[in-house]
Amino acid sequence: MGQTIEGLEVHDIRFPTSEQLDGSDAMNPDPDYSAAYLVLRTGDGSEGHGFCFTIGRGNDVVAVAVEALRPHVVGRPAPSCAADLAALHHDLTHDSQLRWLGPEKGVAHMAAGAVVNAAWDLAATRAGLPVWEFLASMSPEELVRLVDFRYLTDALTRDEALALLRAAEPGRAARAALLREHGYPAYTTSPGWLGYSDEKLVRLAKEAVAAGFGQIKLKVGLDMEDDVRRMKLARAAVGPSVRIAVDANQRWDVADAVRWMTALAPYEPYWIEEPTSPDDILGHAAVRAGQPVRVATGEHVANRVVFKQLLQARAVDFVQIDAARVAGVNENVAILLLAAKYGVPVCPHAGGVGLCELVQHLAMFDFVAVSGSWEDRVIEYVDHLHEHFADPAVVVGGRYAAPRAPGFSARMLPGSVATHSYPDGPVWQARRTAPEDDR
Amino acid sequence: MGQTIEGLEVHDIRFPTSEQLDGSDAMNPDPDYSAAYLVLRTGDGSEGHGFCFTIGRGNDVVAVAVEALRPHVVGRPAPSCAADLAALHHDLTHDSQLRWLGPEKGVAHMAAGAVVNAAWDLAATRAGLPVWEFLASMSPEELVRLVDFRYLTDALTRDEALALLRAAEPGRAARAALLREHGYPAYTTSPGWLGYSDEKLVRLAKEAVAAGFGQIKLKVGLDMEDDVRRMKLARAAVGPSVRIAVDANQRWDVADAVRWMTALAPYEPYWIEEPTSPDDILGHAAVRAGQPVRVATGEHVANRVVFKQLLQARAVDFVQIDAARVAGVNENVAILLLAAKYGVPVCPHAGGVGLCELVQHLAMFDFVAVSGSWEDRVIEYVDHLHEHFADPAVVVGGRYAAPRAPGFSARMLPGSVATHSYPDGPVWQARRTAPEDDR
Repeated sequence: MGQTIEGLEVHDIRFPTSEQLDGSDAMNPDPDYSAAYLVLRTGDGSEGHGFCFTIGRGNDVVAVAVEALRPHVVGRPAPSCAADLAALHHDLTHDSQLRWLGPEKGVAHMAAGAVVNAAWDLAATRAGLPVWEFLASMSPEELVRLVDFRYLTDALTRDEALALLRAAEPGRAARAALLREHGYPAYTTSPGWLGYSDEKLVRLAKEAVAAGFGQIKLKVGLDMEDDVRRMKLARAAVGPSVRIAVDANQRWDVADAVRWMTALAPYEPYWIEEPTSPDDILGHAAVRAGQPVRVATGEHVANRVVFKQLLQARAVDFVQIDAARVAGVNENVAILLLAAKYGVPVCPHAGGVGLCELVQHLAMFDFVAVSGSWEDRVIEYVDHLHEHFADPAVVVGGRYAAPRAPGFSARMLPGSVATHSYPDGPVWQARRTAPEDDR
Repeated sequence: MGQTIEGLEVHDIRFPTSEQLDGSDAMNPDPDYSAAYLVLRTGDGSEGHGFCFTIGRGNDVVAVAVEALRPHVVGRPAPSCAADLAALHHDLTHDSQLRWLGPEKGVAHMAAGAVVNAAWDLAATRAGLPVWEFLASMSPEELVRLVDFRYLTDALTRDEALALLRAAEPGRAARAALLREHGYPAYTTSPGWLGYSDEKLVRLAKEAVAAGFGQIKLKVGLDMEDDVRRMKLARAAVGPSVRIAVDANQRWDVADAVRWMTALAPYEPYWIEEPTSPDDILGHAAVRAGQPVRVATGEHVANRVVFKQLLQARAVDFVQIDAARVAGVNENVAILLLAAKYGVPVCPHAGGVGLCELVQHLAMFDFVAVSGSWEDRVIEYVDHLHEHFADPAVVVGGRYAAPRAPGFSARMLPGSVATHSYPDGPVWQARRTAPEDDR
């Protein structure tokens, strides 16, 4: 009985980040970084932690969606292998009544992803391995078993996936050793939030380079002249050899994106991220064809079917997986395989609450066992809120250190959970009882 | 004060339809047709009714998502014109924190749609017009004001939309008179649920023809030999001139769809509906190119951006709008305009709970003021659950009678709301206390 999942706890955790302008961009002026956070507990005291990242209002909706998955989880044997994790992923994403709420997108899908990820945390913790190593310990046959190939077979069959994984198998141990020694390349978004002054932008950009980052990112999209000025300042601050990505957070239509990026192109942006709607595959292809800067997207891409098409349509130069928007590790393994098939580098989205902690495992697994490369690959890093995690992401010299603790680095500190619970934790109580201010 | 929205009530309403096999298809074997149902109330006693249709579990999640929209609704003046309804639609879909939960898809977007639709019910009721006439009373300038053109301008600009609407303006009165006299063409899905026996299929198909329907629909996708047999039986039952659409409810990958429809083609299916994932624009285009049967989709298409691409990619022959999945009337006006621009007929999805009631208004508005045509257009009809509505859809001789009562035909009878409230209404109480049976 000790191996049965006996408990599922769900917490609505919110951080009042809108009080600073950290995280501000062209579409999200005042985010309160939040997590619908869950804990699975087995009878023998093991725990699995997972979460959806949101930016405030609606975090309760995701929490309720996680609760709706309880019947699939509680009473189930704790998963310990690929077959178990595949079965859980299947049950969560193929509940026909819940599937109607997507299908495979939005709140219901994010909730499934949080539970899947918590199950991976549980299984890897019990196996005594960090998730990236747990994944990399699986055979190609086990790994393809994780994947739901429905809707993918016109782009990637099970046999093709197996061949990709087998081709990468011989170098696994050597690449894992490289990771442990050198870490994985990171870039930082910290200098570039839209709400920051020019002075702060320049100072933080220089600090990023001094800290060893070879790439930074600026938010753009509200005002083209402002963006040209900021891009010019950033380029002057970091010099010609540091990459500067720009991110429009879905602000534009196709023609806007082409016009804007043509204006920014002289300052050599490395990529344009989320130029338009994440649903607009053909729009991304048109943006890519219409201006000289490489195109990246993915943090809001709902599922593997949309990623498949972005690749089929040659719409993106970089695939930006998010650890907590799709249906967890399983669906991200599918997306890594699709990207490998099309030869497109995966550069994960991170930041938010705990996204750096999660996604580092997926990028490292990709390096070890799927693409086998870290050329042109880089994980986003934002230096926010890591202090709330028990096994925080560590970035040194512009590189993510390979996690060594068992699990998915997903566990929040109990004190942080208690303090930031919404609406009754002390952080929020204090804000309700404080006199009105300008917030 | 009488014109302020003072109340928002949300109800979790479920019907135990899984006890019969009504509504069974290849992906949804046991739906309990449900509605997250809401009522807006003004101080002077007006009401606006709206809902999301779901198939059971998760209906509570949608209800909580509607609650999350309360701050945008309660205390707001009751909308009475296009500008008001555009502003409400904008506020509901551009709340940046809630937008993160989609964006513009899934639970959060469906909830916004339910509130938008309730606001249309309220506004049309106060204007004393059914929604189709209320819409058709608006000028082209007012109608384009309803539409959020973000992400659409590479396919349809505001000026192009205005030109389409102006071109249809002269015939509006004559077409409205035609509708009032003759109604709008319908087709019926009632014969074709997968759970039905061959005998029941044949009997219901013949009854449909006798009742005046020129088109029926069969569910397919579980077993190809079964489907060929059922299609052959249905064709023999209805003769060569009645259209038989088939619907796979997203069951297939591209190659399956091509193979299956090639096998069904000798029996002349009129369209293949939802052959694959509703997110798979390129997949639909490949299915359309790979076999001889026309392609339809839309009931699960998340938003106008995906519809735009289905049209740009020439992936569909019929656009199947759903009244309650996208962000309500406003987004459906955008989709009707896109379809008109590309010359693709709109054949709405209906059935479920109250979808016939809602979507008839949109199809009739399309006929009067957008496409100006009912050639090759037909609204789905399923004869389920209409008895729970105060102004039920009326289909006679295979045609929807034009609604005459003010509003959106969205009001459920108070007795039905009370009886089917989940989990505490008497219908569900009885099921919890009844002895275990085979359900």
